[in-house]
Amino acid sequence: MANLTGGEFLIKEIPANEIFSLEELNEEQKMLRDSAKEFIDREVVPNREKFEHNDYAFTEECMKKLGEMGMLGITVPEQYGGMGMGFINTMLACDYLSGATGSLATAFGAHTGIGTLPTLLYGSEALKAKYLPDLAAGTKFGAYCLTEPDAGSDANSGKTKAVLSADGKHYIINGQKMWISNAGFADTFTLFAKIDDDKNITGFVINRSELEDPNSLTLGEEEHKLGIRASSTRQVFFNDMKVPVENMLGERNNGFKIALNALNVGRIKLAAACLDAQRRILNHSIQYSNERKQFGVSISTFGAIRKKLAEMATGTFVSESGSYRAAKDVQDKIDELVAGGMNHQEAELKGVEEFAVECSILKVFVSDLAQHTADEGIQIYGGMGFSEDTPMEAAWRDSRISRIYEGTNEINRLLAVGMLIKRAMKGQLDLLTPAMAISKELMGIPSFEIPDYSAYMSEEKAIIANLKKVFLMVSGAALQKYMMDIEKQQHLLLNASEILNQIYMAESAILRAEKHFSPDSVEAAMAQLNLYKAIEKIITAAKEGIVSFAEGDEQRMMLSGLRRFTKYTNTPNVVALTEKIAAHYVEKGHY
Amino acid sequence: MANLTGGEFLIKEIPANEIFSLEELNEEQKMLRDSAKEFIDREVVPNREKFEHNDYAFTEECMKKLGEMGMLGITVPEQYGGMGMGFINTMLACDYLSGATGSLATAFGAHTGIGTLPTLLYGSEALKAKYLPDLAAGTKFGAYCLTEPDAGSDANSGKTKAVLSADGKHYIINGQKMWISNAGFADTFTLFAKIDDDKNITGFVINRSELEDPNSLTLGEEEHKLGIRASSTRQVFFNDMKVPVENMLGERNNGFKIALNALNVGRIKLAAACLDAQRRILNHSIQYSNERKQFGVSISTFGAIRKKLAEMATGTFVSESGSYRAAKDVQDKIDELVAGGMNHQEAELKGVEEFAVECSILKVFVSDLAQHTADEGIQIYGGMGFSEDTPMEAAWRDSRISRIYEGTNEINRLLAVGMLIKRAMKGQLDLLTPAMAISKELMGIPSFEIPDYSAYMSEEKAIIANLKKVFLMVSGAALQKYMMDIEKQQHLLLNASEILNQIYMAESAILRAEKHFSPDSVEAAMAQLNLYKAIEKIITAAKEGIVSFAEGDEQRMMLSGLRRFTKYTNTPNVVALTEKIAAHYVEKGHY
Ligand SMILES: Cc1cc2nc3c(=O)[nH]c(=O)nc-3n(C[C@H](O)[C@H](O)[C@H](O)COP(=O)(O)OP(=O)(O)OC[C@H]3O[C@@H](n4cnc5c(N)ncnc54)[C@H](O)[C@@H]3O)c2cc1C
Ligand SMILES: Cc1cc2nc3c(=O)[nH]c(=O)nc-3n(C[C@H](O)[C@H](O)[C@H](O)COP(=O)(O)OP(=O)(O)OC[C@H]3O[C@@H](n4cnc5c(N)ncnc54)[C@H](O)[C@@H]3O)c2cc1C
Repeated sequence: MANLTGGEFLIKEIPANEIFSLEELNEEQKMLRDSAKEFIDREVVPNREKFEHNDYAFTEECMKKLGEMGMLGITVPEQYGGMGMGFINTMLACDYLSGATGSLATAFGAHTGIGTLPTLLYGSEALKAKYLPDLAAGTKFGAYCLTEPDAGSDANSGKTKAVLSADGKHYIINGQKMWISNAGFADTFTLFAKIDDDKNITGFVINRSELEDPNSLTLGEEEHKLGIRASSTRQVFFNDMKVPVENMLGERNNGFKIALNALNVGRIKLAAACLDAQRRILNHSIQYSNERKQFGVSISTFGAIRKKLAEMATGTFVSESGSYRAAKDVQDKIDELVAGGMNHQEAELKGVEEFAVECSILKVFVSDLAQHTADEGIQIYGGMGFSEDTPMEAAWRDSRISRIYEGTNEINRLLAVGMLIKRAMKGQLDLLTPAMAISKELMGIPSFEIPDYSAYMSEEKAIIANLKKVFLMVSGAALQKYMMDIEKQQHLLLNASEILNQIYMAESAILRAEKHFSPDSVEAAMAQLNLYKAIEKIITAAKEGIVSFAEGDEQRMMLSGLRRFTKYTNTPNVVALTEKIAAHYVEKGHY
Repeated sequence: MANLTGGEFLIKEIPANEIFSLEELNEEQKMLRDSAKEFIDREVVPNREKFEHNDYAFTEECMKKLGEMGMLGITVPEQYGGMGMGFINTMLACDYLSGATGSLATAFGAHTGIGTLPTLLYGSEALKAKYLPDLAAGTKFGAYCLTEPDAGSDANSGKTKAVLSADGKHYIINGQKMWISNAGFADTFTLFAKIDDDKNITGFVINRSELEDPNSLTLGEEEHKLGIRASSTRQVFFNDMKVPVENMLGERNNGFKIALNALNVGRIKLAAACLDAQRRILNHSIQYSNERKQFGVSISTFGAIRKKLAEMATGTFVSESGSYRAAKDVQDKIDELVAGGMNHQEAELKGVEEFAVECSILKVFVSDLAQHTADEGIQIYGGMGFSEDTPMEAAWRDSRISRIYEGTNEINRLLAVGMLIKRAMKGQLDLLTPAMAISKELMGIPSFEIPDYSAYMSEEKAIIANLKKVFLMVSGAALQKYMMDIEKQQHLLLNASEILNQIYMAESAILRAEKHFSPDSVEAAMAQLNLYKAIEKIITAAKEGIVSFAEGDEQRMMLSGLRRFTKYTNTPNVVALTEKIAAHYVEKGHY
């Protein structure tokens, strides 16, 4: 399999056989998926109410059980007590353990992700040996202390201070952290502070139970939150906290890089963590709408409901497609680097960093969609959707947080496009050559030949190739106009990000359908329906950009390019696709 | 002022001077607005937490105070102890009393709307004299019992039964109602039941405190709800409840009509009830984003935030524009009917019924937008938006209910288009003639003359005229194809409803700006920005319909018509408009 680089999907035609998807799990992966699912159905679903009644202890209990099952050590190498599994497995656990309640999803994500990874990826041998086994076993839990009252999106601006003790053996740390997940039951705290007057933060890891002065790390009260009510979220105060110098992670001044890399992994895992929530909401919705009768019939017979069900199923399919596709690209990159002689730790870092653009795309797209799916779920339940007696309202509240943490979706949108531009400027990704080719193409006369689109998905793939041209055309022209100032043009960057996200996700779904499903399958219909809607969104976003930064002839040329590049030869019948998908799932009774 | 009929805006060019808006309040109305606002700021805002902690008694206390102020009797004629004010005043109270918490908004809306109107509009003289004074004064509170566990959207299908007593003096009522707002503290219950084996429901009104057997009306526990936590919502059980025969509202078998008419009024008032919520969320968001600093600057300097603020302000302006425009049309119709000799009660009924299409449009558009505004509010607050310590999360939860009750937004979308079609079929609204003219226009060669758009809003109004053609073209063709079967084509009806809603609201904002604000005003910019976005939504909805029900030449012709009818001669610069609006409010500090 050809190894891609990050963002390369924009300038390359990707063959379907290079896309990995859930259909390709091996036996080990299927077992992992099934045992995760089975755990949630057995231990979590029947106790749904506990999570809504702020039962933090129950969340901790679930985490302990997950530890006993080995679920907390999936990514941790065997030498540190973990299972040393690959990235797909990490994603699978995240996916299938996170669907029933955001409280456990957050506890699990914070512990195995940002709570474990900095030590795993940047810790010295001694730190890894000391901290990882407990984290992998769930005998200690992890929290990650980056955010401060005045340092959220601007994470590097924290005021927490570290000063070397007189004997040179410790850093004395003072400061206040905020919104710290798992704080209430964590022992292992990863934290970031500025040493002396450093410009950048530095990472540390400690066990709270081993502090000389137990009062040197104190907690605020539990925050009262909109959702994920049984996820512990507290302020953390460091009061002359003594941290042994050897507990520094990586190098001094390098903490921001650690933080960002932990977040990169966190982002794609967060996308995974939204998938099973979508499936579960959808399944509840299909079931309820089959059972609920109004006007003498099941409400699942009404077009208004069927449209929702079809779109929810489609969204779920598309979300899965993008998430596992990217996961495999990350895993392949890691394998390639390891094969090339890099140690696993370093390779993992570089693997995810390579696909940071894709991680941001996924975080935004899937978390937004999960929210929308829950919203439609409420609506399908009507008045009952507004009641705490049905699972919809908690799903809706819980899914709200995914759009805020691990970098707000706005920040991630800006980042994805910003990183692409940087990669292009650094020569890591040649966007310029294809952008220039498009300019030329636009000057020329369009071909009036009617292409042969008889092959399965051939028209869809031709359109996706054209949508990539839209992105390159619009962003190329904007870049030319604003040059380095482009970073300040957030309106335009947000438009570009919408185009980017839609392309990546639409392509993932089309290729997955092509690889695994027949032309008349419901999966093909979902990929096609999604593509149709993606094109509409791309047209809207691109047009808004074009009419804003281009004028006169340039505007006219780009608008005509936009029309050309978004045109079907055989426009699909949207209602027929929708009906086909709805009919399938209404009949089947679940996703 | 020319009196419109319902839906007529689609086939008529409406001059700006026929649009009423908030700029035109008279002194009495301004006083009403200000005292409502002042009450909320003094009594409600400082007690925000009580509403979130299910303090039903506090809601009741606020309602009592509103009663003392006269706010509960605005619509009630003076002879029954009310203020007998017009429809605009009713809307103003609803608007400015409903912005701080959905709990009070619901209590107020249920009491003064569905809890009072059936008696006001359909009660006998004796019933009005008996019930209205207490309702107007807030010495008794009203609840409205229509919904049942198996009868929600299908409200006429309720199983609650009424049987005449042996002596013919009472109806004995048995049944179960669900989701009854104000049930916990109401005394006056309006309820619907089927007499014997009637096909249709019949309305009744009773005072709980006057029941012979106090146990013949019992309540379920308070429902645990996603939002409006201090609004009492309970099941109501009738157990051989004796209701004097003279307590019937209107005629036997006529209850569904009563229910629907109460809902028509309820819907436009619900739109009003979402307006001040939007203003308050926006004001908090402007203030917070001016205060919150990240990366060394106020976050209100970031394009991503400015875009949100500009769109929130625009949405608020547009929502106001449509709501008060329709309110005045209703009021004019009532005045006209009264001038023609109709009694006030009957005239009020007919007035709102006439504009039932507009009421549904408003209910859907404004409630969806209020939700979106709250959602953006959370996002602007970042992590703090997820905390119960800031007002965003409650606003988000509370606004969720408006999309469900008074008919779900789906039902209202289907209704609006369905009612239009019925009006057309009954000859109340001639959609056919203009639809045929458009067919002819499409066959002809488009004019290549460049029109003179130098007059203020002339291009915008030309486009709105064209958008109406889009609606007529698409719905006319769909109607021709499906004929009476159109009611089953919900996918298409939903597309049509989106076009319809966008046209009505966009036109309202454009005409309001034209009438009251200068070409370079921020209000003009908001109307223009909204129009641009409305066109995009209309294109998407119309295209989806066209590619689904039309094929070949017909499809091509309609798509080309769509392009022609949605084209600007001078396309606005969307980012520049957005920036202008944002700059204005960021500077001003509030809406
Ligand atoms: C329940 C919960 C759990 C959390 N768990 C953890 C945890 O375990 N560990 C941890 O360290 N943190 C955690 N966080 C913090 C979270 O990561 C931050 O809330 C998030 O990064 C946003 O930061 P902020 O809240 O300070 O918002 P701000 O940074 O103040 O952002 C406010 C708004 O401004 C926008 N904005 C900011 N900067 C820019 C810019 N340059 N351009 C455009 N827009 C901008 C944002 O997108 C947002 O819309 C958690 C938060 C919550 C609510
Ligand atoms: C907090 C709250 C307060 C309320 N207060 C009152 C009150 O004071 N008095 C009162 O009488 N009622 C009240 N209601 C009830 C409310 O009006 C109903 O919940 C609402 O009408 C929807 O009915 P339902 O819940 O039975 O949903 P259903 O009718 O079961 O609808 C479920 C889904 O099916 C869809 N659907 C149903 N029929 C169709 C169709 N023909 N075509 C397409 N789609 C369809 C709906 O749009 C919805 O998406 C309240 C409800 C709540 C939650």
